[in-house]
Amino acid sequence: MSTTTQAPQSPGAPKTARGARTRAKILVAAEETFGSLGYHRAGVTDITRAAGVAQGTFYTYFTSKEEILRELVMDLGHKLRAHLAAQVISSGDRLEAEEQGLRAFLQYLADHPSLYRVLQEAQFVDEAIYQEYYETFARGYTDMLNAAARKGEIRAGNNQHRAWALMGLSHFLGLKYALWDQRAKQGDGAFDPIVETISDLFRNGLALNGRDKG
Amino acid sequence: MSTTTQAPQSPGAPKTARGARTRAKILVAAEETFGSLGYHRAGVTDITRAAGVAQGTFYTYFTSKEEILRELVMDLGHKLRAHLAAQVISSGDRLEAEEQGLRAFLQYLADHPSLYRVLQEAQFVDEAIYQEYYETFARGYTDMLNAAARKGEIRAGNNQHRAWALMGLSHFLGLKYALWDQRAKQGDGAFDPIVETISDLFRNGLALNGRDKG
Repeated sequence: MSTTTQAPQSPGAPKTARGARTRAKILVAAEETFGSLGYHRAGVTDITRAAGVAQGTFYTYFTSKEEILRELVMDLGHKLRAHLAAQVISSGDRLEAEEQGLRAFLQYLADHPSLYRVLQEAQFVDEAIYQEYYETFARGYTDMLNAAARKGEIRAGNNQHRAWALMGLSHFLGLKYALWDQRAKQGDGAFDPIVETISDLFRNGLALNGRDKG
Repeated sequence: MSTTTQAPQSPGAPKTARGARTRAKILVAAEETFGSLGYHRAGVTDITRAAGVAQGTFYTYFTSKEEILRELVMDLGHKLRAHLAAQVISSGDRLEAEEQGLRAFLQYLADHPSLYRVLQEAQFVDEAIYQEYYETFARGYTDMLNAAARKGEIRAGNNQHRAWALMGLSHFLGLKYALWDQRAKQGDGAFDPIVETISDLFRNGLALNGRDKG
């Protein structure tokens, strides 16, 4: 399954628009192939067959299966962050942004189930890329929470801890309701009850008497 | 790497106390071996070498590497739930139990880093066992939250959604602070600042003005 010996040097970026399209096609095919077969079972031939290109074409753009996984994880991270940023741009404040962001994340995961599998499997191929994915996400999230605290939209507190907690909260709600539970994701507004639960947690806490118990 | 053909029938439980000890020794060795080498790279011979038993002895107790992974995940789940239950038994109410439970979970993960890897890797070997692990955990968690709501310790709300959110919150805080961040886990009370952040979220919410904004 190891392909690293076949092309020892990284082939680099495509030089033509057609090359860029072919490279993008291979990335999409790899995401689907890793998502359906799993990284370890998927071979380069499965990817090139799905992309409709010759096997040699793969090595024009990528050194190995490992390299394409790394590239995919980076690419998925960029796309997801861009998608979430676009979805929350109309939010009035951080609390609204959290609600819109959670809804957008759950919908994105339901629409791109391969994202989850590719990302999770990456940790066993190269833990550094998995860690970097989440550290990058957490840095941006912490900055947003710090800005919201300065604007008086959220309570003062350790926003790095909060960022990791909130990423985990979204991740597991996505695992359960956007990937595993088929009923939960049917129809418009399917994720609204989940967003309402979390909105209540953010706005009022979990304790019955809220802040006066603190 | 597939070993399922070597012993088509499950060998069943050991019949003597000595057999039970040998079986337990193989399980511990498998957890360490999967944790350090990863499931796909680890062979049955790596496990038997670590356990100090002959390779044939493995097949006296287990059918295959897959079977031992399944058994390990179930076993880790039982142990973790028992550990958390013991740690929170002195809690005054659900909020205190959440705080003590989070601290105990972070410490357990720091002390048993193989747990995380074995569990996460299991999803790519047999997703059903991974899903069952978390569904079992979530059912118990939801029951506890429902009981707390009836006692008036927490706000009314969808406790299944909350259970998944809280599992994810703990999971990602553990990933970051108990596994990746070496500084965070040094010394007694190392996890107290994290528990304080989450305690504030549970007691007061994230919004600056708490419930009166809701």
